[in-house]
Amino acid sequence: MQKKRSLCALTNFLDQFGDKWSLLIMRDLFLYKSREYGDFLPLSVGESPSTNILATRLKHLVDLGYVSKKKHPRDGKKYIYTLTNKGKSLRPVLQTIIDWGGEHINGTYTKTLRS
Amino acid sequence: MQKKRSLCALTNFLDQFGDKWSLLIMRDLFLYKSREYGDFLPLSVGESPSTNILATRLKHLVDLGYVSKKKHPRDGKKYIYTLTNKGKSLRPVLQTIIDWGGEHINGTYTKTLRS
Repeated sequence: MQKKRSLCALTNFLDQFGDKWSLLIMRDLFLYKSREYGDFLPLSVGESPSTNILATRLKHLVDLGYVSKKKHPRDGKKYIYTLTNKGKSLRPVLQTIIDWGGEHINGTYTKTLRS
Repeated sequence: MQKKRSLCALTNFLDQFGDKWSLLIMRDLFLYKSREYGDFLPLSVGESPSTNILATRLKHLVDLGYVSKKKHPRDGKKYIYTLTNKGKSLRPVLQTIIDWGGEHINGTYTKTLRS
């Protein structure tokens, strides 16, 4: 857990999600419901994090309670990642960002996240 | 301008704002309307960026058209930073994040941004 740099809600959000990848991992979990580790790698052309960054960000999201990590039911060497209820609470934040981006950043597409 | 890593609206948002400071600079411009460079430094205890990071992030926001940089009317050596209309469009995004943080990250306070 990071030491808080302030009590501002926005600052604390950025301490948890202020990077290039954490919210993309959350987006994929909203879109696909559950993912194995390797599923995150080819997010789309040019969008893939390095495996080191992905592992760090996934662990961070699990440690913070937004993502659940459980053993794969049919392959004990793999793990399944899903959103926790705490993670699901981020849906309106992600959807607001996505809708804003689609409107204000030229040439981008939007998606509707399932609740 | 960064090369786009994908056409996803969320990815593009993160390419522009996915760091620890850019949205805090935007927050201060919503709260205080106009700021001189030095005004951003003592944001609050523990929250101040290094001057190098601040200068980089401010230039980035000016280059992207979210923040306007104009000569100070009474001191030609200083600049005044204000939100452009494009910058003001971020208000619902910031407010959604702030409200979410206040509800889901323990011990944080929220503010209402003026439009």
